[in-house]
Amino acid sequence: MEKMDRILADIKPLNKEAMAEARKRQDDLTKPQGSLGQLESLSVQIAGIKGNPRPRITHKVIFTLAADHGVTKEGVSAYPSEVTPHMVYNFLRGGAAINVLARHIGARVVIADLGVASVLERHPDLKDRKVATGTQNMAKGPAMSKEEAIRSIETGIELVEEELSKGVDILGTGDMGIGNTTASSAITAALTRADVGAVTGRGTGVDDKGWERKVKVIQKALELNRPDPKNGVDVLSKVGGFEIGGIAGVILAGARYRIPVVLDGFISGAAALIAASLSPQVKPFLIASHQSVEEGHRIILDHLGLKPLLNLGLRLGEGTGAALGISLVEASLKILDEMATFTEAGVSEKEESHKL
Amino acid sequence: MEKMDRILADIKPLNKEAMAEARKRQDDLTKPQGSLGQLESLSVQIAGIKGNPRPRITHKVIFTLAADHGVTKEGVSAYPSEVTPHMVYNFLRGGAAINVLARHIGARVVIADLGVASVLERHPDLKDRKVATGTQNMAKGPAMSKEEAIRSIETGIELVEEELSKGVDILGTGDMGIGNTTASSAITAALTRADVGAVTGRGTGVDDKGWERKVKVIQKALELNRPDPKNGVDVLSKVGGFEIGGIAGVILAGARYRIPVVLDGFISGAAALIAASLSPQVKPFLIASHQSVEEGHRIILDHLGLKPLLNLGLRLGEGTGAALGISLVEASLKILDEMATFTEAGVSEKEESHKL
Repeated sequence: MEKMDRILADIKPLNKEAMAEARKRQDDLTKPQGSLGQLESLSVQIAGIKGNPRPRITHKVIFTLAADHGVTKEGVSAYPSEVTPHMVYNFLRGGAAINVLARHIGARVVIADLGVASVLERHPDLKDRKVATGTQNMAKGPAMSKEEAIRSIETGIELVEEELSKGVDILGTGDMGIGNTTASSAITAALTRADVGAVTGRGTGVDDKGWERKVKVIQKALELNRPDPKNGVDVLSKVGGFEIGGIAGVILAGARYRIPVVLDGFISGAAALIAASLSPQVKPFLIASHQSVEEGHRIILDHLGLKPLLNLGLRLGEGTGAALGISLVEASLKILDEMATFTEAGVSEKEESHKL
Repeated sequence: MEKMDRILADIKPLNKEAMAEARKRQDDLTKPQGSLGQLESLSVQIAGIKGNPRPRITHKVIFTLAADHGVTKEGVSAYPSEVTPHMVYNFLRGGAAINVLARHIGARVVIADLGVASVLERHPDLKDRKVATGTQNMAKGPAMSKEEAIRSIETGIELVEEELSKGVDILGTGDMGIGNTTASSAITAALTRADVGAVTGRGTGVDDKGWERKVKVIQKALELNRPDPKNGVDVLSKVGGFEIGGIAGVILAGARYRIPVVLDGFISGAAALIAASLSPQVKPFLIASHQSVEEGHRIILDHLGLKPLLNLGLRLGEGTGAALGISLVEASLKILDEMATFTEAGVSEKEESHKL
């Protein structure tokens, strides 16, 4: 708790001077003001995060955190829990979507086991940080203890801290965990007070009956555990997951160390809700990479005041959307840094005499 | 005309076998089927274009075509025509947004003068293909002759053909031309029969009065010239522009040579309307990179049946949106080619016993 509290206390606002300077440069670049839309505002946001009016990014890191969920016993997922470890091995072999997209954008992937139910084979690229072997079934009681909730958040913080010496100019969040859309829907309902039905989607692909069951299980878990909507740690412990707590920690560390945080989809969004409930000051550090197919994601983004960069119908997780988002952020910073200004290029600016 | 007709005759449908094979592989990759949304369908489309179930792209080319518009005499733009040549020089020096984004994605940019009003200084990277020194004022008569319209299209075709020996695995379209949103709105109104007001935006940034004037000028041009809504060449000659005709030619050549065509925004969209009116067979070769801020763009995309990949509030042109779109297409192809299949990875597929 001490580590988490220290991190929370050290999150500071964006640097307004750097943002003003970046905005000024954007407005002097050889294009009509505002014509690059969100790419312009993104670059100004990153300037504020880094306290640098012309920031560049070199080291891109995606944190893909895995864990299992006891609630799968209720039959809420189209896939069995055994898929979680198999997919972790797939990450380690480089054959998953996140590996492909990380290579595409030139990012490294940090793979960590925050609480996979089975014991995973050791691997030099796998960080074994199991808080427990999967959560308890939230339909029968709390998913984890308060101590485990804090430990999962602090583990996420540590994962970022361990990477700092290698360089982390931007980070993306990612998840793997069969059952984690159920936990994320429960977290979203608890923290945004939205209806369970409105924040529950199909996950990896349940049918109508499966969806109805999923909604009922979440309602039951919320009624039984009564998470405190003002307390992110309580919500995480009652209806969360270890990878979700870990991602919340990654987000807090990003804000603390002034690293732009590119969120993946629904699971990362639920983690962001927890992080923002612990400190609303994290919000300006967040970038929503995409709008997920999962129903609840839009509600999360509205709640956090985020506008997604992409809307490609993604619903995979792993950090795949975050990878694509990081590339757009990088593009926005290259625009800010590399484009010629009107003065440099000798191009006439929009003149009053021509303004209509 | 002969060249154009030959190209039109040689456009063939997508390769269904390659698409079926690509779809089959997509469905066997280690992710829930459909969970990568538009990235999946994109990769299948490219497989069909290239007749290869696992296509890769290496050579990316953006065609940025410049020309001037006589209609600027009516006061329809926030910038003077002199900006067109200045921006071409900016492209040649590498200081424009399109240069930055092309470098970001590893593409080369082909810069061509299709009809800039002034004489441009020679430059090894500038293709001087002036059809004329700017169009005529469409509010007073046709923008160009029928011969000039065809010449601009054929010039676009030639620009692509000249690049084939260097390799063109995917192409993006781009434009520069003060006044070209006015021409594009007129083309869109003529070919989609939408109201002029509904397809007219702010261009580089006219105010309310400027917008009203722009709408009236377009209405006048359409009433005066009566472009034939069934004839793309007629529409181009009456209310088009040389860079727009050139882009239409680039699009036709893309379809003919089975190169995926990633469209930029509104101007490229208007060119695509012309290309599609000459041959509806070009449509399956098109990818809409983004949804522009320009009002008429959505109408164009609906008309062509295209779903944009990005919606970032862009309205710059030059091929900037296309560059970002090409990177997403490349990502989709890497997913298709590099990801492990369930069989390879030893991951359990969704089993009936677990299906809920």
